[in-house]
Amino acid sequence: MSKNTAKLANPNLETMSSDFLYHLDINVANTKDTSDIEHRFGDVRVICTGGTALRMRVLALYMRKVLGIADTSDPVDLCERGHRYAMFKVGPVLCVSHGVGSSTFSVVLHELLKLVKYARCQDPVFLRIGTCGGIGVPPGTVVVTKDAFNGLLRNEHEIAILGQRVVRPAQFPEDVIKNILAYGADPNDGFQTISANTMGTDCFYEGQGRTDGAICEYTDEDKMAFLQKCHDLGIRNIEMEASMFASVTQKVGVKAGDVCVTLVNRLAGDQVTITMDQKHDFEQRPFLVVGRYIKKLLQQ
Amino acid sequence: MSKNTAKLANPNLETMSSDFLYHLDINVANTKDTSDIEHRFGDVRVICTGGTALRMRVLALYMRKVLGIADTSDPVDLCERGHRYAMFKVGPVLCVSHGVGSSTFSVVLHELLKLVKYARCQDPVFLRIGTCGGIGVPPGTVVVTKDAFNGLLRNEHEIAILGQRVVRPAQFPEDVIKNILAYGADPNDGFQTISANTMGTDCFYEGQGRTDGAICEYTDEDKMAFLQKCHDLGIRNIEMEASMFASVTQKVGVKAGDVCVTLVNRLAGDQVTITMDQKHDFEQRPFLVVGRYIKKLLQQ
Repeated sequence: MSKNTAKLANPNLETMSSDFLYHLDINVANTKDTSDIEHRFGDVRVICTGGTALRMRVLALYMRKVLGIADTSDPVDLCERGHRYAMFKVGPVLCVSHGVGSSTFSVVLHELLKLVKYARCQDPVFLRIGTCGGIGVPPGTVVVTKDAFNGLLRNEHEIAILGQRVVRPAQFPEDVIKNILAYGADPNDGFQTISANTMGTDCFYEGQGRTDGAICEYTDEDKMAFLQKCHDLGIRNIEMEASMFASVTQKVGVKAGDVCVTLVNRLAGDQVTITMDQKHDFEQRPFLVVGRYIKKLLQQ
Repeated sequence: MSKNTAKLANPNLETMSSDFLYHLDINVANTKDTSDIEHRFGDVRVICTGGTALRMRVLALYMRKVLGIADTSDPVDLCERGHRYAMFKVGPVLCVSHGVGSSTFSVVLHELLKLVKYARCQDPVFLRIGTCGGIGVPPGTVVVTKDAFNGLLRNEHEIAILGQRVVRPAQFPEDVIKNILAYGADPNDGFQTISANTMGTDCFYEGQGRTDGAICEYTDEDKMAFLQKCHDLGIRNIEMEASMFASVTQKVGVKAGDVCVTLVNRLAGDQVTITMDQKHDFEQRPFLVVGRYIKKLLQQ
């Protein structure tokens, strides 16, 4: 195996004769000869992930334009039979939906990491494109995550393994961040692309200090003090995936980046008040940034 | 407000003039006069939730038969514009998808709890229908959750709120369990419906002691010791939602039940090896059980 393919951090995989990637509905019938998987996915260099199937479909259509791929057919969902995640392939780019939050994303991330291993993809880069809440930045700002914090305001990811707490580091590689900013952002964009820390929580309401969920046992003052503490830690956006995404990719040793656009400035309020038109405009921004970065990456 | 409608555990909701249930794409324009929401959803008695949009659509079609509702039209997804969750209404039953795991389920659960409050639903019952791994029971067994354990093998749910760990109890109400077993199970079903404890984890691979994920730092012996420990605690199935679902509904004080069918016996292996036909048969079993229970509930 080439030294640039993903090694993964699980020796057991070498002893399995077959591997059914259950949630992707992709069967690796023979792990000793994965030429069929290599034939289908071996050219993949970038795996883009995002919350909804619809947005990943739109991204696939957008990547065709970016990469100059003349294809007017309907994008085919390669995981349709699994009914859980959607996967579209545009040349060397996969666009895969992951749902809302770490629990659902971690399932598909483990299986995607196994997929690029079996397919012997060279130097794969995993990207997440999403929407998020902002802290002290105007709605519409694109944030490229540096350090990922969990809901306990720690720059790490905590996971229960065999009944015990396991804590792992959660940083994204500096060179990926640097290149996304260098090649992805444009001063004429009309919006800011920044790198900053991100908090990933397991709960959208109580986990992010919102006061408008079904449960709330703190005051507005408590909330503002919490958000200020986040701001003091260099956190400029809050979503639900960053710490898991950073820690799993860091552990395995694959390159990864998290690029999200803020829909609300939490220092000004909890409810999302932008119009649907604004939301669609904002959602396009990470596409622009990531599209330029991928184009450059593939030229290297 | 009648004493049988959901009160919720958030006094702030009384001071908000409007409430946009963002992920459901349902706007409560005036919280002081929610007659429009009451008109649309006020008759809802049961909220069924489950992982995929497809399965919830199939459940909606099934509930029409169970409730004798003569309607041959295509079920309408009431949350389609939100692109994240699917919601179908069949008379007094809502069928709503929640994705994989607690992070995504908690978002939609908070918003559904607010929905039944604004709609003034009477004595609403929340149910989850799903698939899961089994421990020491044959694949195809239907498990009705008693106590919900988290990945730390504790009968509680832990959540980070304002940067602090908060621990809450996670039990399902006894009368709901008793009634699901009494009215939902039938000795002639050809499969077992049991009540037992359930572990809900945030990770499908490492969180559930699987050895076939992208990362694994323990041995087969460690895994078996862990699963045996689960078994000793009365845990007969593992999924990714139970502890969050139990704790949030218990906190708010609404009735809830978790009904899952096992697809694999983890004491015999990690990979799901049943055929697609068997899987479809198994997935139908919680429908049967919950369908009978709901029919009885609505007659009372």
